[in-house]
Formats: sequence, structure tokens, C-alpha cells
Amino acid sequence: MSIQEPNSFFDQIENFVPSISLDCVVFGYQDKELHVLLLKYRGTNSWSLPGGFLPKEAGMEEVVAEILFQRTGLRSIFLKQFHTFSSLKRGWLESKQDKKNFDVIKSKLPSEHKEKLVRWFSQRFISTAFMALVDANKVTPRPDALSDDCRWVEVDNLPSLVLDHKEMIEEAKTQLRHRVNYLPIGHSLLPKKFTMSDLQALYEAVLGERMDRGNFQRKIMNLGILNRHEKLMTGASNKAPYLYSLNTGVYNRLVKEGIGFSKY
Amino acid sequence: MSIQEPNSFFDQIENFVPSISLDCVVFGYQDKELHVLLLKYRGTNSWSLPGGFLPKEAGMEEVVAEILFQRTGLRSIFLKQFHTFSSLKRGWLESKQDKKNFDVIKSKLPSEHKEKLVRWFSQRFISTAFMALVDANKVTPRPDALSDDCRWVEVDNLPSLVLDHKEMIEEAKTQLRHRVNYLPIGHSLLPKKFTMSDLQALYEAVLGERMDRGNFQRKIMNLGILNRHEKLMTGASNKAPYLYSLNTGVYNRLVKEGIGFSKY
Repeated sequence: MSIQEPNSFFDQIENFVPSISLDCVVFGYQDKELHVLLLKYRGTNSWSLPGGFLPKEAGMEEVVAEILFQRTGLRSIFLKQFHTFSSLKRGWLESKQDKKNFDVIKSKLPSEHKEKLVRWFSQRFISTAFMALVDANKVTPRPDALSDDCRWVEVDNLPSLVLDHKEMIEEAKTQLRHRVNYLPIGHSLLPKKFTMSDLQALYEAVLGERMDRGNFQRKIMNLGILNRHEKLMTGASNKAPYLYSLNTGVYNRLVKEGIGFSKY
Repeated sequence: MSIQEPNSFFDQIENFVPSISLDCVVFGYQDKELHVLLLKYRGTNSWSLPGGFLPKEAGMEEVVAEILFQRTGLRSIFLKQFHTFSSLKRGWLESKQDKKNFDVIKSKLPSEHKEKLVRWFSQRFISTAFMALVDANKVTPRPDALSDDCRWVEVDNLPSLVLDHKEMIEEAKTQLRHRVNYLPIGHSLLPKKFTMSDLQALYEAVLGERMDRGNFQRKIMNLGILNRHEKLMTGASNKAPYLYSLNTGVYNRLVKEGIGFSKY
């Protein structure tokens, strides 16, 4: 877990609910690959998910939306809780590498609150993890108070991660892969207008498999979620692909009802 | 939330992680209807989900499995976390009815620990909710330390529930309905051998809609999850339906991979 904004955090730790942390797997889509947003702890070679803690006077959903706004500059992005991690093995003292990381992190804490902060970070944390989907091209990643780097990393090429953050990313990937089997995706991951092959590339990145072009097009058109627009004019007009946008009405209805087994 | 076993609970409250509770939506299938297991708080007319708290030395999954064993007598049932509820509005003091219930519940607490227990129940709780699927006919419902009744209730005909427990059941129903669109169900809800119309009735109960018989049979057979056995002999043999069981290998593979959009 990382933390909310520096000053409001370090001296107001009493305002957070003890034992509970929040972590967020932010998926971004860029260059036909699925990416995840990671932060690097200052002074370490270990990366972590964006995250924070739960104020005593707030619900999780609004807090995570605020944390993500601080890290990405985006509001109203697709955001969904996917799992609460409570294993006894997820602490900073459970592996050699995390113990080492924890020593470095402690050494960088502001000295006036050090004792209190070390006690805070030494607790057992139960972490509720959220998944967000964003158009990576719209994001300007910003490090938080404990980190000196924040950037997009390909999900299939992850660096060393702290605690159980790798497991969190894996679980989020699995749930996202299942999700595209029963709910439409695209909204918030793609620009407003896109080609059919943009959409197919997104589905392939999420599912981790190649799909037949005609078959994909037929299935997507059957869902009725697309509006067709003008052609994308870059080369010869007979080969130019159509641009599409999402039909928000149908899209939102399917997000509620689900597609799949009962519909085909 | 209700509580774990009486004696180990009332005098050992210090051993639980503060602010965290566990609730469980146990779906049972019986008489072609989906049911949910509810407890009635002693002295009230309000019902609640089975639940409990998280010991400092345990992970959520094992604790919930133990709570469910105590309420149902069953082990190794289908059990899955589905949401963590953290709204500020979920406390005992948020509605008139819950305030009244809370007064009754307090009056029934054992006097030697009363002060400590009232303080405990007055906290803000973040509740992680689990969904379980069981064959209702195998269960002997057992009340817990705070309740005097425990029974199956039809999900479409719920009584008055405490806190946000109705919302929890609704969310569990939605997620279960989505789930059958991309993962097979049946295991742990049905007896070992069943007819095609038993399975269809289960799907209809979960999806809340009628399905075409031929269409259902075709889709289920396409999944390859069924083994066909002898006929169920009750009347004329030419009308006797076949019995089926689940092909666990294929079933478990599909639970991992998902079915749906990418497969059809």
C-alpha cells in the first residue's frame, strides 16, 4: 500500500480506521497492450500498487476515487472492488525482501512522526483491492509521498513487487478476463471513437488470446453496443476502416443485465 | 452480523480485529426455489445473515468456513467473497428500526461482559461479505449465541432484515446471476445425480427467468460438463428422464477459464 497526500497523511494518521488498507490495480490500455500503474518506493527497487487508508468518516469507494484522481488526474473512471486480502502472510515482516524494503521505507519517514508511523505500518492490514480501467493516454502518472516514480508497466512483464501486490494483479486479471465474458468492456479504456480492430485488440489483450476477426465482429455487432460513424481516412478510401463509438444506452443495460449464457 | 460460538466469543472479544465483520449469504436450493439462510435476533422480529468477526490470528476464508460449519453442519461448500461493505450508513444507530433492535440485543447480552460488548457492537464495522451455495436438503440450520431461530427463507420473499443485509443479499443475487453467464454452476447446489429439468430449474431460479427447454439442453450439453447415467425410473420407461452428474474435470476447467463470449 502507498499513502494519500503527504502532509494530510503523516500527521493525521489517527483519522484512519486501523487495520484496513486500500489498494488499486489500475489497468491502462496503450500500444495494444494491457498495462498496470505502479509506484516505486523511494530508495528501494520494489514497486507497489497505488493505495491508501480509510478515513474514519468515509466509505471506501469515494476514498479510492480520490486516491486515483491524485495518481492519474482522472475522475469518473471505471472503478470496482474485486477482493479483500486478509492472509496472515501479507505483512512487511513475512519475507526477507519485504523486511529489507520496510527498513528503507522506515528510514525515509519524517522524523517528527516516525514512532507513530512505524507503529502504524507494523500493524496487520486487511486490504480491500479495487480494479480501475482507464485510457492510458489520458493519464499523467504522479508519485505519492512514499514513492519517487509512478509509471505504466506491461502486465505481462512485471518488476519485483512488495507484499502480495503481484497476487492482487493476477486476481484482477482473472476477474477482468471473466468479466468480458459476461459484460461489455471498452468504455473508459478506449477513446471516444475507435475502429473495430482497436476494439478487437483490446479484447485480445484482456483475454490473452487471439480471436478470429469475422467471428469477433459478428459477436460484437450482435450485442448492439456500437454506433457506426464515418470512415477513418488515412490511406485508400476503399480500405479505410469505419469508426465506431459505444451506444451508451445499450452498453449500460448490458452492464446491468449481463450477456452470455442466458442470451445466446 | 451475528457472532461465533457463545462462550469463546463473549469473553474473548479482545482477540478479534476491531472494525471488521464478516457476513455470509448462504444460498440453498430447495423445491425449485432459491433460498437464503437467515437468523432471527433473540427478542426481535428482525433477521440477519450468519456472520461473525475476524480473529487476530486468522484469515477471512478459514473463519467464514468455520462459521458456516457451525450454522449448517456442512464443510467444503462453495464459498466466495463477493463484496466489502463500508458505507457510513451501515451502523446500528442509522435507522429507527435498527436502534430499537440494538436496544433489545444489548438487553440480552451477558451482564458480566456487557460494557465491553456494547462498546464492541457500537463500533463502525466494515463488513466483508461471502456467498455460499449449498444443497438445502443437507443442512440442519443452527441458531447462534444472539439468535433464537435459523431457517431457510425464499430470496423473493424476505422478512425485515437488520442493517444493510437486504442490500447484501441483492448484491449476491446479482453477482450469482452474472456468474452463471460465464461459469458453470450446479456443483454443491444439486445432489450428486439429477435430471436435466432439475438443472434447468436451478438455472431459472438463479437467473429469475424461464428458459426454452431445447435451447437450455443444447447449451448445457455443448459445455461438456455432464455425464449421462441410467434413467430415473418412476413411471413409464419411455418417458423416464435420464440422470446426469457433473464431469468434475471439465467443470473445474471451466470454472477456471470461464465460458461465454470468447468461447461461442
